[in-house]
Amino acid sequence: METVMSDEILLSHGSGGRLSHQLIDELLIAEFGNPILNRMDDSATFDFNGRLAFTTDSYVVSPIFFPGGDIGRLAVCGTVNDLSMNGAKPLYLSDSLVIEEGLPLSDLKKIIVSMREASEEAGVQIVTGDVKVVNRGGADKIFINTSGVGIIAPSVNISSCNARPGDKVILSGTIGDHGMTIMMQRESLGLSGSLMSDCAPLNSLVADMLEVSTNIRCLRDPTRGGIAATLNELAHSSGVSIVVEENKLPVTDEVRSVCELLGLDVLHVANEGKLVGIVAPEDAENLVNRMKKNKYGVHEVIIGEVQKEHPGRVILKTFMGSSRIVDMPLGELLPRIC
Amino acid sequence: METVMSDEILLSHGSGGRLSHQLIDELLIAEFGNPILNRMDDSATFDFNGRLAFTTDSYVVSPIFFPGGDIGRLAVCGTVNDLSMNGAKPLYLSDSLVIEEGLPLSDLKKIIVSMREASEEAGVQIVTGDVKVVNRGGADKIFINTSGVGIIAPSVNISSCNARPGDKVILSGTIGDHGMTIMMQRESLGLSGSLMSDCAPLNSLVADMLEVSTNIRCLRDPTRGGIAATLNELAHSSGVSIVVEENKLPVTDEVRSVCELLGLDVLHVANEGKLVGIVAPEDAENLVNRMKKNKYGVHEVIIGEVQKEHPGRVILKTFMGSSRIVDMPLGELLPRIC
Repeated sequence: METVMSDEILLSHGSGGRLSHQLIDELLIAEFGNPILNRMDDSATFDFNGRLAFTTDSYVVSPIFFPGGDIGRLAVCGTVNDLSMNGAKPLYLSDSLVIEEGLPLSDLKKIIVSMREASEEAGVQIVTGDVKVVNRGGADKIFINTSGVGIIAPSVNISSCNARPGDKVILSGTIGDHGMTIMMQRESLGLSGSLMSDCAPLNSLVADMLEVSTNIRCLRDPTRGGIAATLNELAHSSGVSIVVEENKLPVTDEVRSVCELLGLDVLHVANEGKLVGIVAPEDAENLVNRMKKNKYGVHEVIIGEVQKEHPGRVILKTFMGSSRIVDMPLGELLPRIC
Repeated sequence: METVMSDEILLSHGSGGRLSHQLIDELLIAEFGNPILNRMDDSATFDFNGRLAFTTDSYVVSPIFFPGGDIGRLAVCGTVNDLSMNGAKPLYLSDSLVIEEGLPLSDLKKIIVSMREASEEAGVQIVTGDVKVVNRGGADKIFINTSGVGIIAPSVNISSCNARPGDKVILSGTIGDHGMTIMMQRESLGLSGSLMSDCAPLNSLVADMLEVSTNIRCLRDPTRGGIAATLNELAHSSGVSIVVEENKLPVTDEVRSVCELLGLDVLHVANEGKLVGIVAPEDAENLVNRMKKNKYGVHEVIIGEVQKEHPGRVILKTFMGSSRIVDMPLGELLPRIC
C-alpha cells in the first residue's frame, strides 16, 4: 500500500482520500495544530467583534529555498505584513498548497516547519487549509496561498489615501535585500556573498509604532516593484507628491554593488521585511526612536516628505543635488520574486 | 509600450508595476468593483460582529472550461459552499490568481466574468485579491485561490462532529456529475453527450434549510473523494456509523453508464453543487420538502441513517440486499478535478 511515508509527493496526496488525510494529519495538523484547525470542518470558526482586515497572497517564489528564508516563511510573513500595513493585529491565517507531483517530502516538511516557526514568531495561528497536487510539469515545485484575518483597533485609521502635505516618509531599514538575494540565487552568478533576504513579520514593529503615534497615515511593505511602486501607489491614492532624499536611503554595500553591476535601480527591487510609513511630522522623531528598539526597525530613517505640488508624482533628490521623477516600474525586474 | 491590451498574459502583468495595475484596474476592479475592494489597500477592511467562518481553497481543475462551468465559477462556488457547510452566510471572498505566461487574455476575461456572475448569484463580494504570473511551463494555464469569510447565526451549530445515532442522512441531488464531466472532457472519449458539471453555490439552499430546522447536525459538500470520502469523514469525526441505501442514491443514467463503462464507483466521484446533510430524524421530512423548492435541491432525498454500532464505518445496503463497507478512497480517481 502507498503511504504518506513515500519520500515524494504523489498525486494521491491531493485526492481527498486516505493519503490526503494522512498527509494532513501527519504533517500539517502535527505542525500547525490548534483547537480551531483541529476541528477539520470545511471552515474555521471563531468569534470576532470589531473592525476586520482580510487579505490574500499567493507565493510563487523561485527558488523555494534562499538565504534568509524559504517560500513557507515568505508566505506567512507576507500575509502578516499585508494585515499589519492596515494597522491590524494579525490573528488567523489560512494555508493553501498547490504542490507539483514529485516534490521531495523532505522539502515539504522543511517548508511546513518554516511556516510554523514564522507563525509562532508573528503570534498567529493557521486555522484552515487546503492541499492540491498537480501532475509533474503542471506547476513548479510548490505554490502557497495564505489569506489572513486581523483586527484593527478603533483608534487606527491607516490607508493609502491618508497622506497629507507636510507628512514625513519613514523607512524601516535597508532596501533591496530580498530581491537581490533571489536574483543572485537564480542567476547563479557566484556573487551571492553574504546577501540575505530580509523576509520577516512586521506586526510587532507596527504594534510598537501604534503605541507612540495615533497619526500614522499610511503603511506599506515595498515588495514587488520596490519602494518605487509603493511610493507611486501612495502618491496616487492620496493625490499628493512624495519627495525622497537619495542620501537617506539605507542600502547595504553589497546590494548597492550588485545593483550597479547589473544596472538595476535599487528603488525597483523587492523587499520582504521592510515598511514605508507616512506619518504626521510631529510624530516622526518619536516613531523613529521607538522603532529603532525593535529587531526589525534598527535602521529606521526619515527619508522624505509629502508635498502638495505635482500630485501623483514621486521625486528623488539625488546624491548629486538634482531631482528626478521616480516612475512606477513598467514591467518585471525579476519574475517570481515572491 | 506594452499595454494590458496585449492579447496574452505577460510576465509583466504580475510585476507589481504599471502593467499589473492596468490589468487590475481594467479587468479585476472593472468586474468585481465594490467600495471595499476599490480602496486597494493591502487588506480589505470591514466591521464584523459575531461568529465568523473562514475558509480557503485553491482550484487547479483541468480543463479550465467545461460543460456547466469553468475554473472561475468553481472557485467562487467551492468557497461559498465551504462556508455554507458550517451554516455560515457567505459575505466576502478573496481572489488570488496564479497565471501562466501566455494565457490568452480572452480566457482570463471569461473566467473573471464567470467569477463575477457566480458572486452575484451567491450574493457575495470579492473584496481583496492578488495576481501572480509565472513563466511558461511554470504552471498550467491558471490556478485560482479563493478564501472566504461568512457569519454564523448564534442558533446554528453545524460541525462534522455532531452526528448522533438515529439521525437521517440527506442528499441534495444526483451524484457524480462534476467528476464524470471533467473525466469525459479530459479523456476526449467522445462520450460526453449531455453530461454537465453541477457546479453551483449552495448558500441559498442552506439558508432555506436553516429556516425550517434548528437540528441540522452536519453539512458537507462531497467534492474530491465523492460521497464515500464525505461520509467516512463524518462517521470518523462523530464516532458513529452511517448506513446508506444504494437504491435511494440519485444518479443520472448518463453518469451511471459512464461509470459502468470505466469501472468506477460513483460514490468516489466528485460533486460541486451537492450537499450531504445529517439531520435530526424528526426534521428530515420537513427539510426535504423545503429543499425541493430550491433550484439546487430538486432531487433532495433521504439516503440513510446514522447508527451507533461500528463507529467510523460507512455501510452501503446494495440494490441486491447485501451490505458492503464503503471505504475512504485510497488515492486519486482523477487528479485536478477541482
